[in-house]
Amino acid sequence: MVAQPLPSSVVPETDQYAGDAVFELHRGGKIEVTSSIHVRDASDLSKAYTPGVARVCTAIAEEPSLVRRYTWKSNVVAVVTDGTAVLGLGDIGPAASLPVMEGKALLFKEFGGVDSVPIALDCTDVDEFVETVVRMAPSFGGINLEDISAPRCFEIERRLKERLDIPVFHDDQHGTAVVVLAALRNALRVTGKSIEDTRVVISGAGAAGVACARILLQAGVGDLAVVDSKGVLSEDRADLNPVKLSLARDTGGLSGRLVDALDGADVFIGVSGGTVPEEAIARMADGSMIFALANPNPEVHPDIAHRHAAVVATGRSDFPNQINNVLAFPGIFRGAFDANASRITEGMKLAAADALAGLISSDDLRPDYIIPSPFDERVAPAVAAAVTAAAEADGVARA
Amino acid sequence: MVAQPLPSSVVPETDQYAGDAVFELHRGGKIEVTSSIHVRDASDLSKAYTPGVARVCTAIAEEPSLVRRYTWKSNVVAVVTDGTAVLGLGDIGPAASLPVMEGKALLFKEFGGVDSVPIALDCTDVDEFVETVVRMAPSFGGINLEDISAPRCFEIERRLKERLDIPVFHDDQHGTAVVVLAALRNALRVTGKSIEDTRVVISGAGAAGVACARILLQAGVGDLAVVDSKGVLSEDRADLNPVKLSLARDTGGLSGRLVDALDGADVFIGVSGGTVPEEAIARMADGSMIFALANPNPEVHPDIAHRHAAVVATGRSDFPNQINNVLAFPGIFRGAFDANASRITEGMKLAAADALAGLISSDDLRPDYIIPSPFDERVAPAVAAAVTAAAEADGVARA
Repeated sequence: MVAQPLPSSVVPETDQYAGDAVFELHRGGKIEVTSSIHVRDASDLSKAYTPGVARVCTAIAEEPSLVRRYTWKSNVVAVVTDGTAVLGLGDIGPAASLPVMEGKALLFKEFGGVDSVPIALDCTDVDEFVETVVRMAPSFGGINLEDISAPRCFEIERRLKERLDIPVFHDDQHGTAVVVLAALRNALRVTGKSIEDTRVVISGAGAAGVACARILLQAGVGDLAVVDSKGVLSEDRADLNPVKLSLARDTGGLSGRLVDALDGADVFIGVSGGTVPEEAIARMADGSMIFALANPNPEVHPDIAHRHAAVVATGRSDFPNQINNVLAFPGIFRGAFDANASRITEGMKLAAADALAGLISSDDLRPDYIIPSPFDERVAPAVAAAVTAAAEADGVARA
Repeated sequence: MVAQPLPSSVVPETDQYAGDAVFELHRGGKIEVTSSIHVRDASDLSKAYTPGVARVCTAIAEEPSLVRRYTWKSNVVAVVTDGTAVLGLGDIGPAASLPVMEGKALLFKEFGGVDSVPIALDCTDVDEFVETVVRMAPSFGGINLEDISAPRCFEIERRLKERLDIPVFHDDQHGTAVVVLAALRNALRVTGKSIEDTRVVISGAGAAGVACARILLQAGVGDLAVVDSKGVLSEDRADLNPVKLSLARDTGGLSGRLVDALDGADVFIGVSGGTVPEEAIARMADGSMIFALANPNPEVHPDIAHRHAAVVATGRSDFPNQINNVLAFPGIFRGAFDANASRITEGMKLAAADALAGLISSDDLRPDYIIPSPFDERVAPAVAAAVTAAAEADGVARA
């Protein structure tokens, strides 16, 4: 049999969005489940379904590791959200988050050859969320958490990593962190600064800000301040949640406001969605680097940033140096799956960032080319290979 | 970008099953998630993902019904199991059930154009199962329950139908029941008997037996006995669970053993997996009909059944008159989705059975051709159209 075409009755009506190119592209959804094999006759049916399939089930019941070889589990990621922090839109709920989750699934396949399934959960309680994902985990080879509000996302990820023996990865944290580190490594090559001597200010202490801070500390950044809407995270603040307090302990002894932190700083990383006045960035060190990643409105407009900084990056595709998670997550899961990794280690994330940075040769490196394009076909294979090797080095790869 | 090919390292090793045609067909799984659109450049990316996708999310947040038009939700079924009653293999657990769930997903697409996702849950508690499915429901347009042990399956289905406004369908119950009713209608045409005057004995009071009994009562069967391993379900038995007791109340006042019930019966429907001795079927009425559906070993071998019965059907593809759920579930969900039905009513199931039976014209009808082949391309469209019409008639279709 061949698939029946979708009857027109599935999407019969019109609405105010008809004719809009973005909505037309979304009509009927962006992904589908297709058969890897075709069922043309009784012989095919008896192999793909009963009675033949019973032998495959029995083999897996006897030797559980065979599930990896004889089902799609080893190549499929659940993209799981509760819709509480979707893009910059906030808590719009699970149904309205689905276009983003489908987009993620689309990119997983197009860029990494990874199958993935959007799972938008109607539950915001951390315990319930964790239990739900644990229960569905036998169906999946990995869990990509997405668009979950902070600080809940930290607790959810931590507990899922404890409970499951498959990769669990909150992309808003680690995908962003990996690409930021890659961009920073190349920005440092451009400016001739060393990571140990670099003073970095991160504006934003949500999922992305916290993860960027953690990976930069791992990578050896010597002086780091993280700033939220109330100012620099510091131990003397009484209003910090445990995640922020822990970060305050692990970063420099600074306090004050963002402008104070920027005074003499080498690097500004904006993952906050706020705006930073030109006077503040004017006070940064010579040869400074500005990564203004808020979308669609960067914390500092690139034209203004360029007046003061040696290297400027944004999250937007219409400016040079786009810092986009799609540079990381497809290759990271591809590499983790190729290694049959039980989890994604710090080493695997650092290796992904180094592989990404390393794609730009010294000859090609320029202030407006510190990070490859998402459409550079070398990206996912390079990231995947580095991640697989790091999984083996870290002892989390399985036969 | 185009999808990266699966690296050979995903399935590198060999095992005792290598070279076996059934296992080779299962290698790497039978389904994949593919993109309906391709992302070739920054313009595509900005429409399918950020920033464009944010407008689609916002539109759905403002008008929730748009999720049906601008995501895949309206065409995707979760195939959900806990692995407690997989085929005839019993409680083999969620991971080992995955090949069956993938097979189901394959058939949904190939025969009905319906996308579906295997969800094998690691929880056997009824409350937990129900809560888990309710939480993930925003992601799906329908729930197909599969291979869940009785009587838990009845409670799970009942509660999910109460909680959700999308079709919930336990295929082991209703898929079987629909095809059995279709076959019975045509067997009655062949034998010239009327449904009201027909005495039916069902062997098996699990998911399939209970649902067959219920649909046959709906369809007007006048005299029905359901038999489990202890004998005919009757109100004087103290060992019946509530589902069986309710069925005992709604069926004839018979008691005794299977052989007693078969004495003078017109129809035997075996969904038990046991065996029925030839002496027992020899005592059935003239022009009897035997549907011995256990797989791979029918309760009565067709060669023996033919000595005594006018019409014989099995669940096997290598004998005439194969009663196979694949004749029902793809068209039923196709029809429910085309109607945007909030649930699957009794009327929709009866309509599906009638449409299936009606595909065989009086000219073509023969004792060995009472049910179409699964590969008859008229099947899913005919079932879908009848189900859509019945959804509209029953008031469960939505704009």
